[in-house]
Amino acid sequence: MAPTVVFRQVAMLGDSITQQSWGDGGTGAALANAYQRKLDVLNRGLSGYNTAWALPVAQQWLPKTTDSLPETALLIIWFGANDAALPPSPQALTIEEFKANLHTLISLVRSPTSPHYSPSTKILLITPPPVDAEVRGADLMARDPPRVPDRDAERTRQFAEAVKEVGKEAEIPAVDAWSRINEAAERDGGLTKYLNDGLHLTAEGYKLVTVGVSEAIHEFISELHWDHIEQTFPHWADIPNLGALGPQFLAPDSRLV
Amino acid sequence: MAPTVVFRQVAMLGDSITQQSWGDGGTGAALANAYQRKLDVLNRGLSGYNTAWALPVAQQWLPKTTDSLPETALLIIWFGANDAALPPSPQALTIEEFKANLHTLISLVRSPTSPHYSPSTKILLITPPPVDAEVRGADLMARDPPRVPDRDAERTRQFAEAVKEVGKEAEIPAVDAWSRINEAAERDGGLTKYLNDGLHLTAEGYKLVTVGVSEAIHEFISELHWDHIEQTFPHWADIPNLGALGPQFLAPDSRLV
Repeated sequence: MAPTVVFRQVAMLGDSITQQSWGDGGTGAALANAYQRKLDVLNRGLSGYNTAWALPVAQQWLPKTTDSLPETALLIIWFGANDAALPPSPQALTIEEFKANLHTLISLVRSPTSPHYSPSTKILLITPPPVDAEVRGADLMARDPPRVPDRDAERTRQFAEAVKEVGKEAEIPAVDAWSRINEAAERDGGLTKYLNDGLHLTAEGYKLVTVGVSEAIHEFISELHWDHIEQTFPHWADIPNLGALGPQFLAPDSRLV
Repeated sequence: MAPTVVFRQVAMLGDSITQQSWGDGGTGAALANAYQRKLDVLNRGLSGYNTAWALPVAQQWLPKTTDSLPETALLIIWFGANDAALPPSPQALTIEEFKANLHTLISLVRSPTSPHYSPSTKILLITPPPVDAEVRGADLMARDPPRVPDRDAERTRQFAEAVKEVGKEAEIPAVDAWSRINEAAERDGGLTKYLNDGLHLTAEGYKLVTVGVSEAIHEFISELHWDHIEQTFPHWADIPNLGALGPQFLAPDSRLV
């Protein structure tokens, strides 16, 4: 009996910006579309979570070395938007805590003593996008009950810098979503085109991040760019020339892991 | 050590219409978005494939009872667009062959003697959409080298009927994409709004199918409608009240299978 063909996976771990990125024009949906018949792209976004809360989740989501689960070929980590919340928000962390948590997340798959050790897993970091603290504050004040402003543009910039520092320290590529969106906003006269509530991304905002992710994979993890992965199973027009149809059009041992 | 939390899956098996449905506005992308933090939705579309060619693929994709792979909670089967091709296309099948293949696909998870037997898996069928044979024929004739017309509106309608017959015979709900799109086209003055090349769906076409899928799940497989599945892991605002953070905010035995 031929073994089950298992698709390797891209797991996208992050906050609401990741969770919502499966909407029209979102980066998660765009990656899933690009990786058709190549890799399964999984939404592991957790609205409102910071890195401290994501850690125990990741410890339960990531396959363990003792599992027979599909391999995580690419782990995308996109946090900071909530970690950068201002005290007294329960989401607020210090930059030092944030950086330590990112390093811990990375060590889950990188450390040989971790139960999730997976030396074949590549990692990509994404910085939080910029915030428009005024728009975000107005959005919160308009809620019932009203909430006090909880974000600051400069603080989020520092958390974006922290992601890049962790990337350098761990030798992991980081997509600078903060700079890409901020520079586009400076050209276009503001963040409104890219942020819909001062914090979350519009389809235009996601598009800038998607381009950054594509470029980073192409440059640093080239073997995992969708352009460099063969589609599973033969092209339909080749099938009539393969001889008798059946499971033999995939060799029994061609497990995709 | 807590067991790995495994997301149950929705596998969407079909042809190019399924494969392309992860684009903006597509049904696959819409389902993946709706099932955020609930079920993983997998693109198992195979451009150009008919059901005969899909069978050996399904035999390798579907988890086996001996695997420790995630459960397929919902299997969506959407074929017919290529099966209904006109001879001498190598894609062409007879209606009897098509129906038998659909029954075989269903039996892969339903038959107790199948290595893929999964009594907990629910199944949903989707009929092929209508074709505009004239637009499709013109598209093929304009290619280099030109190809002869290979679709017929009435033949595709018969294959759509066949899907509904299989649904009745196997007691499985079938979303009538053919009628939904055809009726909308009669109101709107043509298929152009719903088909982009006479065969494949526009975002507007996919939206009609998505509504049909949502309604069918709601009516017949209610426990798997996204509105009836709890999100994994606590709402972020509840976390500060859960006590010390850590893996304990998910009970160790709450494996999602």
